[in-house]
Amino acid sequence: MSRLRVRNERIHELLHSGDQRRLRRTLTRLDEVQIASQFDNLTPDDQLQVLGLLPVERRAPVLSRMRYESAATLVARLAPEQAVELLDDLRPDDVVDILGRIDDKKLGDILARLDRADVEEIEELLAYDDETAGGIMSPKFFAIGADSTVREALERLQSVELPTHVLYVYVVDPDGKLVGVCSLRQFVQHRPPERVRDFMQAEVVSVRVETDQEDVADVVSRYDLLAVPVVDDHNVLLGVVEVDDVVDVLREEATEDILQMAGAGHHLADARSFWPSLRVRWRWLGAAAAGGTVAAFSLSSFDSALAQVPALAFFMPVVAGMGGNVGMQSSTIVVRGLAVGFIEAERVRRLVVREVALGASLGLLYGLLIGLFALWIGDGSMSWRLGAVVSGGCAGSMTLAAFVGTCTPLALDRVGVDPAIATGPFVTTSVDVMGLLFYFWLANLLLGTGGG
Amino acid sequence: MSRLRVRNERIHELLHSGDQRRLRRTLTRLDEVQIASQFDNLTPDDQLQVLGLLPVERRAPVLSRMRYESAATLVARLAPEQAVELLDDLRPDDVVDILGRIDDKKLGDILARLDRADVEEIEELLAYDDETAGGIMSPKFFAIGADSTVREALERLQSVELPTHVLYVYVVDPDGKLVGVCSLRQFVQHRPPERVRDFMQAEVVSVRVETDQEDVADVVSRYDLLAVPVVDDHNVLLGVVEVDDVVDVLREEATEDILQMAGAGHHLADARSFWPSLRVRWRWLGAAAAGGTVAAFSLSSFDSALAQVPALAFFMPVVAGMGGNVGMQSSTIVVRGLAVGFIEAERVRRLVVREVALGASLGLLYGLLIGLFALWIGDGSMSWRLGAVVSGGCAGSMTLAAFVGTCTPLALDRVGVDPAIATGPFVTTSVDVMGLLFYFWLANLLLGTGGG
Repeated sequence: MSRLRVRNERIHELLHSGDQRRLRRTLTRLDEVQIASQFDNLTPDDQLQVLGLLPVERRAPVLSRMRYESAATLVARLAPEQAVELLDDLRPDDVVDILGRIDDKKLGDILARLDRADVEEIEELLAYDDETAGGIMSPKFFAIGADSTVREALERLQSVELPTHVLYVYVVDPDGKLVGVCSLRQFVQHRPPERVRDFMQAEVVSVRVETDQEDVADVVSRYDLLAVPVVDDHNVLLGVVEVDDVVDVLREEATEDILQMAGAGHHLADARSFWPSLRVRWRWLGAAAAGGTVAAFSLSSFDSALAQVPALAFFMPVVAGMGGNVGMQSSTIVVRGLAVGFIEAERVRRLVVREVALGASLGLLYGLLIGLFALWIGDGSMSWRLGAVVSGGCAGSMTLAAFVGTCTPLALDRVGVDPAIATGPFVTTSVDVMGLLFYFWLANLLLGTGGG
Repeated sequence: MSRLRVRNERIHELLHSGDQRRLRRTLTRLDEVQIASQFDNLTPDDQLQVLGLLPVERRAPVLSRMRYESAATLVARLAPEQAVELLDDLRPDDVVDILGRIDDKKLGDILARLDRADVEEIEELLAYDDETAGGIMSPKFFAIGADSTVREALERLQSVELPTHVLYVYVVDPDGKLVGVCSLRQFVQHRPPERVRDFMQAEVVSVRVETDQEDVADVVSRYDLLAVPVVDDHNVLLGVVEVDDVVDVLREEATEDILQMAGAGHHLADARSFWPSLRVRWRWLGAAAAGGTVAAFSLSSFDSALAQVPALAFFMPVVAGMGGNVGMQSSTIVVRGLAVGFIEAERVRRLVVREVALGASLGLLYGLLIGLFALWIGDGSMSWRLGAVVSGGCAGSMTLAAFVGTCTPLALDRVGVDPAIATGPFVTTSVDVMGLLFYFWLANLLLGTGGG
């Protein structure tokens, strides 16, 4: 993608150099995808300016290739008349994806100006949850009756205005219920008088309109489908989710999982501006701060130990840090494993045992090394015992961390909470507190510093 | 996917209940994808047992739907003759993806028994790097000359044995160079005597055989393609990457990024067994341990401060932890932003400024709160100053962390190192050390404890 990136810098430069003629020429040479990928990275003001330079017929195609968030921001900045003009040329599912990200007032202004039939279709689609099959499906598909012949079907294929990709021909009964599917290739390979019923595939993999988009992506990817039909409770065909939308879903969900585990929000777009970012991160850091103050409070009961052996404090970061790292490793393995279906019910016990064994082995190993180091920098009489406390503290905190890191996401998943959301803060803070408490408990025990 | 999961538990139960008749009946009711998704989660011994119960003609389809790693493990367990029998019925790109994961000795045994023509094709494909267009492409595609008529093309489409999906018809010149592309739908919509040249699209989006698979996925998803042709340096068509392979790539790369940031390896499969996991994680924890001992060593110079004000130690976890969290938030935003192309060159300065501003704002906010808490649990005369040190320490370590967390992945990306690999350990440990050193430096300054 380095080519796209280089070109991107150029358009940004050209815009700010004020050389409109060269900018126009550059725009002519770029295709819609290339322009759209640059639009995504321009400020709204710059976007409006470049949009004005594009010929009218190229504007909608560019809009349709942009990220939905950027497209929505751009559309919201336009006068409602201009917005409607642009939206008129888009696929209904793209329109819905964009309008679903616009605030209600502006949305009302735009809907009031759209064609009545379109509005009904759009409002129907807007009613579905964003992250379900209904929210990402396109209501345009090609369906025929089971008794049609190949000739009739081909004639309709040639005359009807079709969605951009026709990947499958769906077969429905008179009530619109899905009864079969054929590939376009099958039409090419069968003789004109043959009936669809005779070669269609009657076992159709479909999803329900309320199916979560992640599960839709899972079905499409497991069955290697190019599109999956979406049906209601009565098996009536409502729309189609195409594989290109699934690709978007996969990227989005992966990003969401990664960001959520770090407590940095859901969407990269949220990270674009100061206030939304602050709002998202503030909450997550709150959990960490609460954990930290609990730690401070708990540790304050160990002040006599610290006063007698200040060296104990030097090793607090490494005890907490090693635990935190092991905890993150275990919980990441589990969160991702759950997301891609790698962890199935019967493997749970084995998984927990393996992770705890790993944590304990790594803990003994590093505990020993770090303990030897403590021995070396420790002062005189206490140093052997300090070494033992540091070793034991590391080993204990790492073993504990592996257990907490593995079980937390598993437990959250079991009770139906998305493990990616809550695992990060909970694991990090609880592992810190528990690891250090164990460390000081061990110190009191071995150093005889009491007071705990 | 709950349906698949329930069924999965059932087959595992049935196998171990020993009720072979019921198991056989259940297998008949399940399709290849459902069986494959269960195979992925069985032990190799169980897999072999269930495979034996399947009719011969269903075995290859099941194998082709399994994860490549599990399929490779299973194939490696079979006698070479049996393996060859199974592989004979797979698509060459699937065979290559499976064989590429088998050790050399076993691979030799299998290749020696395969058909000579197949071996040549497979060896050619095996020569490409796993993670490039060449490594994931299928060498089967449908191509015709530009002067062919629609009738000729349709006749060939009907007679030739075709790859499962024919998504596009590629147009090549007599040297095999790619000159155009048509959709199958265009053939359906044009009259038999028309020439391909007259309606083909001459601007073809293609990728080079050595293009990284992540970039291939990017092209396919940006252009909403169903397949992208793969060409060599002379634009000769070599193969096709289909969108279902791209879906696999996207999942794989997302998993890789997530795991690498946590230092938990590349593939979930590595996490399956004890020793590979230990090897992967041991290295990453080494970085954390080294950072921790550096911290311990640096902090040891502050022993007089700690001896005078032991309460300083209570707040070490929260100072380091808050910094660590902010650092992870910033670096996650940057790593993921780079991976999905969200961060473009001209935005870098703005990004750094925003992240540091966020870190500083959050730092002041939480610094104040945690400082007030320190005031409350602090002892007598020193408590005002302790509060100030804790406040300042939190604010400083969080600001610093935002800076380090943002700049580290950006710098790694600039010098061509995958930011996901190295960001995690470096950010976590350096932020810990720097934050705590700042905290104690501030303590010496404000508490007048000296000795630093």
